[in-house]
Order: sequence, then structure tokens, then C-alpha cells
Amino acid sequence: MNYQRFFSEAIEQLHAERRYRVFADLERIAGRFPRAIWRSGGQTREITVWCSNDYLGMGQHESVVSAMREAAGRMGSGAGGTRNISGTNHPLVELEAELADLHDKEAGLVFTSGFVSNEASISTIARLLPNCLVLSDELNHASMIEGVRRSGAEKKIFRHNDVAHLESLLKAAGREQAKLIVFESVYSMDGDIAPIEAIADLADKYNAMTYIDEVHAVGMYGPRGGGITEARGLAHRIDVIEGTLAKAFGVIGGYITGSASVIDAVRSYAPGFIFTTALPPSIASAAAASIRHLKTSSAERERHQRQTQRTKDVLAAAGMPVMPSETHIVPLHVGDPELCKKASDRLLDMHGIYIQPINYPTVPRGTERLRITPTPFHDDTLIAALKDALMETWEAVGIPFTDTQPSRVTQTERVVPLVVSKSGG
Amino acid sequence: MNYQRFFSEAIEQLHAERRYRVFADLERIAGRFPRAIWRSGGQTREITVWCSNDYLGMGQHESVVSAMREAAGRMGSGAGGTRNISGTNHPLVELEAELADLHDKEAGLVFTSGFVSNEASISTIARLLPNCLVLSDELNHASMIEGVRRSGAEKKIFRHNDVAHLESLLKAAGREQAKLIVFESVYSMDGDIAPIEAIADLADKYNAMTYIDEVHAVGMYGPRGGGITEARGLAHRIDVIEGTLAKAFGVIGGYITGSASVIDAVRSYAPGFIFTTALPPSIASAAAASIRHLKTSSAERERHQRQTQRTKDVLAAAGMPVMPSETHIVPLHVGDPELCKKASDRLLDMHGIYIQPINYPTVPRGTERLRITPTPFHDDTLIAALKDALMETWEAVGIPFTDTQPSRVTQTERVVPLVVSKSGG
Ligand SMILES: Cc1ncc(COP(=O)(O)O)c(C=O)c1O
Ligand SMILES: Cc1ncc(COP(=O)(O)O)c(C=O)c1O
Repeated sequence: MNYQRFFSEAIEQLHAERRYRVFADLERIAGRFPRAIWRSGGQTREITVWCSNDYLGMGQHESVVSAMREAAGRMGSGAGGTRNISGTNHPLVELEAELADLHDKEAGLVFTSGFVSNEASISTIARLLPNCLVLSDELNHASMIEGVRRSGAEKKIFRHNDVAHLESLLKAAGREQAKLIVFESVYSMDGDIAPIEAIADLADKYNAMTYIDEVHAVGMYGPRGGGITEARGLAHRIDVIEGTLAKAFGVIGGYITGSASVIDAVRSYAPGFIFTTALPPSIASAAAASIRHLKTSSAERERHQRQTQRTKDVLAAAGMPVMPSETHIVPLHVGDPELCKKASDRLLDMHGIYIQPINYPTVPRGTERLRITPTPFHDDTLIAALKDALMETWEAVGIPFTDTQPSRVTQTERVVPLVVSKSGG
Repeated sequence: MNYQRFFSEAIEQLHAERRYRVFADLERIAGRFPRAIWRSGGQTREITVWCSNDYLGMGQHESVVSAMREAAGRMGSGAGGTRNISGTNHPLVELEAELADLHDKEAGLVFTSGFVSNEASISTIARLLPNCLVLSDELNHASMIEGVRRSGAEKKIFRHNDVAHLESLLKAAGREQAKLIVFESVYSMDGDIAPIEAIADLADKYNAMTYIDEVHAVGMYGPRGGGITEARGLAHRIDVIEGTLAKAFGVIGGYITGSASVIDAVRSYAPGFIFTTALPPSIASAAAASIRHLKTSSAERERHQRQTQRTKDVLAAAGMPVMPSETHIVPLHVGDPELCKKASDRLLDMHGIYIQPINYPTVPRGTERLRITPTPFHDDTLIAALKDALMETWEAVGIPFTDTQPSRVTQTERVVPLVVSKSGG
């Protein structure tokens, strides 16, 4: 075994498959979001980011940034220990209360990331429950898949958002076996929404626990930013609501909320929660400030929806293959990894517009896309400039403009069976 | 299945086994470390923390705190995406270069935590290598154990720091099979150090890869804070050096360093790296400032060693059962979970001194302890006050003072075979 050669070859293979990724080196400019400085080949250049998951631009909000700065100045830069060994800082305790309140649950628990919150919570719940069967949507995020795997529990995958399929699996298991249904509210690569109420009905009927990932919805939906479950008045019907502090809330970290006993069990048994340094007070304070702001202010959500709709309308009118999406996510179908990468490169080089190509394995092959995420700060002028840049790029790179495209795309997507998506990376 | 009752009972069981943990709600005071505000039952009180893993007090260092504040003000509170999707911020790129330089390696890679760095890197390396055998020290940290499990690779546990045992396992596997030796430099519950050179010799002899966790050593050992591998001139003999930004560096996050191809492989294949939001620029800037400071300043390390030695000497002279430790970690043997908890409670209530009890499963049953971590900011007066408080507590709670204690303790520890320790939580 030649280790050095082995790893070089593993990298070579990615190049050969055109899957090797180069990260854009960005420097965000607080106060001028979505503008950023891009460094490449010794040069720096100002660009517009059109693929940020700081969906509401809260990462530059005055109250959030000043909460972070204030806490760092007063309490220092780190927590100094795990939650159990001197790391439980008061802002973290307050943040957990804020989150429980956000989702109208008895308790909340914060993790170092949304990834860790899914992996640690799903694996712990499914491992604790005796002989648990996990029912998992086929398009669930990598972090949920890792959680299910790590639990060692039996798992059945149901077709994406397919309630009839889910019911057949639940029925086969019967009422007595412990069952955990794991799904997302907003699926981030297509922007579609799960049939949450129907799933909750099935959970009642067959006595299953429910776990929802609201990572791409918290802050953005519901009168207080409690996500799709809040918007649809369904929070009380879901056992565990999981979310991130890193997207619409603009900071970093993840969490779950639920009944006091479920949360306490995860707190007490999950290695990924127990054996790691707690989030710093500055992070907890900033996240709490963001949540608090979005609980009372709907201006960001309204403008977000408006600018998203406008982006969809403007691009569709220009013949761009806008994939159908119920939410703030605007995917443009390309359908080929090389073209997708070329389009992204050209947008950045020629137009100063940064939109990451989304290729396999993040999405199924044949559905490669540019995934656009308008924010409240992408104003009408930026949208017009985006449209022009995309049209020039589509022509130059040779991607078909739409007419039948959208419906074909939808089909392609729906017939791919049981694809284990790993959205979001 | 009654889910609610099930989880309530899981919690009840922890209470019954006296393993239920209550986290102390602390507010650190930047500039006055190790002093902190403790909240309990509606009261607040100032206390002294004696169990922080902010080992050098860098979490309140002016250059670290101001780097965090400056970056937050200039670039905002979050990264806004995964590394691949707009989240790679310039301070993170600089931090990775700083870390590669620290360990004199070709490349570095930053993760959201030390836990994630171990879990993601070990699982990815061991899964990529065909038919890999993982050789893992029996006292490895929970995050390494999770990484090994997640890899699905075959694993053999070698007795703690037992080079002869490791050799017998390597020999049995032969030179051709891919092998990964996974171990720590400083074991955080006992404060002992691995025989790194002997392990590197074996790795050469039997053609194995080596992966070392320097979480409890980086910043504190070696002329530039490169850890025990730097202090002993062995960094070039270890393939992957892992560390945390959350302990001696005083911030949060984790990393690995190694050859360009190994690091690139982990970067390209590890779900726990790919599918999660990047660390914010403020965190990366603060960590880089801390590393830079400790590369050139040895004052913190010298005072740390001095105050640690003094603490050991003063406590031993007072008859406290100081367990033998080669490093900055000062464990006091208690040997009973109830007494350990009582001592900790009394120290906090009566003396305003916070030292978390360390019970099973963090350490083997029968070796319950108070784990004291002096820092450069625990001055001689604080050490004297600690000694008085401990003596009063030992008397009141009824823990034996030492005479034969230390040697007995060492024995007890060494005969516990193959205990899967989950240190650090
Ligand atoms: C659906 C989903 N869940 C969880 C995560 C992980 O959250 P975080 O970035 O906070 O780790 C992501 C993406 O990052 C995601 O898309
Ligand atoms: C040996 C060891 N490795 C890794 C970790 C995890 O590091 P982090 O706290 O940065 O997640 C810890 C403790 O927290 C540890 O003790």
C-alpha cells in the first residue's frame, strides 16, 4: 500500500470525472451585502453573490453584528469547555429558551451546527428507541442520512414527498413498533415543500414519532419566523423541529426543539452534543439577537418574497429555464455538469456574478443546475443585471432557452427513483 | 410504544444511576479570567473556574477578542454558506495556511469543531483506503471512536500507550494491508503522553499511516505551540496532525494538517466537511490571531507550566491525592461518583470554586476524579485558596487524604482493560 499515491489517485479521479471542486475565496462586505470581494490568482475583484444561504442578509444586520461584538468584548472569544465542563455560557441558555419559544415547544438544545444537530439527534433518538424503524424521505440531506446510518436502526426510504408510499411502509410496520419519520419542510435544491399535515396525520394514525428539518425555512416563514410548521399552524403536531442558526439567522450553529423529555434524552445521550466545546457566547448572543428581531419584524420576510417572485418572473420572461419552486429558491435547469460549470465560471469572470454550479452528487445527474437565492438585498437593478448576464451566458455557453423545458425538468426529477440526495454542499 | 413515557423513563434511569448531569450556567468575564458569574436558582454569584479548557486564557486575549470584533464588524456575523456554496471566507483560507505552517505540513483543513474534524477525517480516510484496518488506542476520545465506527472499517483496539501490543497487531496484519494508527498525544483525563516516536517507528516498520489528536497540546507545547509532535521534533513523522481551535487557542473549531493529497481527499469526500456551513470570518480571524500570537510568544506557555507545577506541589504537600500526570492536567483521585459530585457541589456552594466532577462514562468507574486545569491566570494566591477549599471539602465530605493513594490509583487505572473511554464531556 502506497498511501501517498493512493490519495493522489483519489483526487485524480475527481478531476477525471469533472467533480473536483475549487472553492471561491470570498470576503463579504458588511453593510453592502450581497457584494463581496473575490480573490483569484493574486487578483481581487468586487462581485455580487447570488447563491448565499444568508437568505435574509441577517449576517450584516446591525443588531446581530453588535450583539456578537458586544458579547466577545464582555465574555471573550470562546466558551472554554464542553457544555458539562464549564462551557455552558449564559447566552447559550438564553438562546435555547428563545428557540423553544420560537417553535412553541417545551425545550430547545443547541449544537455546533445544523449538520451535527441532525446527525446527533436522529442517531440518538433512533438508537434509544427499542427496535426503531426510521422512515426517511429519499431526498433528505446528508446530515440526516448520516444520523440514520449512525443509529444502526432499520431504515426504509419513502419516495420524495410521497404520502401513499409512506403510508404503505407505516402500515407494514404496524402500530406497536417504534417508528421515526424523518423529513424536511423545504427541500433546498428544488424549493418544494413537504406535505407536513398529511405526514402528521399518518404519524397519528400509525403512532409514529415525527422529526422535521426546517433548516431552509426558519426565520423566513411563519409570522414569527418559526418556519413552515408555524406558517401552517402545524408545529404542535411535529415531535422534533430542527433548524440552523447559519442560514436565515445569519450566524452559525444548529438546534432541535421538542418536549422536555426528548430534548433531555438527546442532551444526555448524544456523543456529538456531549463531547465537544460549546458555541462561544458571541455566537449565541448574535443568533439570539437575530431570532428576536425576526420574531417581531416581518419586513425582511415580505421583501424576500417579493424579490424572489420578481426574480422568477423576470428570468422566466427572458426564457430562462426556471424550475418550478414553491419557495425562495430559484433553480435554473442546465442538465449537464460541464455546461453548468462553464456557465458559473463565465458569470463570475465576465459578469462579476457568483452562482455556484450544483452538480452530482448534490443533485441527480441530468438535473445539474444553477441555484439562485435572491435575498431582500437583491434589488430590482441587481435582478435586471442578473437577467442580462444569464442571457449572455446562456447564448455563449450554448444552453437551451426554455419553452418546454420546465415541464420536462419536473418529470425528469420525479422519475429518478430512490436517489440518495446529499443536498446543500 | 408510548414515546413520551419512553423518554421520561430514559431520563429517570440516569437519575437513578446518579449520572444525570446539570450544567452550570456561567458567564465568563473577559479581562478577569478565571473569574465568572454563576447563575443558580435565580441568584448570581462570582466564582473562580478551575476546570476550563481555555488552558492559556487566550479566550480573553486582547488580540484575539479584537480580531473577532473587527472581522464581525467588517464581514458580518456568518459565512453564509457551505465551503463550496459561497461560504469560503478569506480569513478561513488564511487560517488554513497558518495551521499548515504551525505543523510544518503541506496543507490544513478547518472544520466546525475538533469533534467533527476527528469524526469526518478518520471515517473518510479509513473508508477511502481499501480494506483498511484501524488501530486505535483504547482511551481515544469519543470523536475518534465515532470516526472509526462510521468508517465501517475493521478495527483493533490496542492497550493504552502499549507499544508492544500495537506491534503485535501490526505484525499480524502484515505490510501490505492498509493500516491507520489513531491515537492522542496528551490524554486529557490522566494527563499522560503517548510514546509518539515509538509509534512512528512501528508505522515505518509495518507501513502504516499515523493520525494523532493533539487537541490537548496545541498552543501549549513546542516552541511555536505546535504540540507534543513539535516539542519532540516528530511532526514530520506523523501523517495527519489533528487539533482544536477551542481549547488553548480559546475560540472554536477544529482542523487537520497533512500532505496536500490527504487533505484534499478529506476535503473532497467527507460529508461532515462538505455539507455544513463554514465557520464565520470572525471565528477564523480570532483563531488565526491566537495561533499567530502563540507562535512567537512563549510567556503564556512558561507561566502555564509554572503555575501547573505549583498547583501540583501545593496540593500534594497538603495531602491531596494528586494523580501522576506529565502535563498541565491535574487530576485529583476521588474514586466514588457520589463523593465526587458532593465535593464538586461543596466547592461551588461554600467556596465559590468550580471544578466539574468527572464520573463514568467519561472515566472508568472507580477512578472518578476532580480534574483541575491551572492556567497562567491562576496565580499563587488562587492556588493557595484552592488548597484550603479542597482540604475543607475533603474533610467535610469524607474523602481520604493521600499517602499510598497515588500509586494505588495508577495501578487501578492501568489494569482496567480495553475500556472505551469517552473523555472530555
Ligand atoms: C436540509 C439541511 N439540513 C441541515 C444542513 C446543515 O446545516 P448547517 O449548515 O447549520 O450545518 C443543511 C445545509 O447546510 C441543509 O441543507
Ligand atoms: C481528545 C479530544 N479530541 C477532540 C475533542 C473535541 O474537540 P472540540 O471541543 O473542538 O470539538 C476533545 C474535547 O472536546 C478531546 O478531548
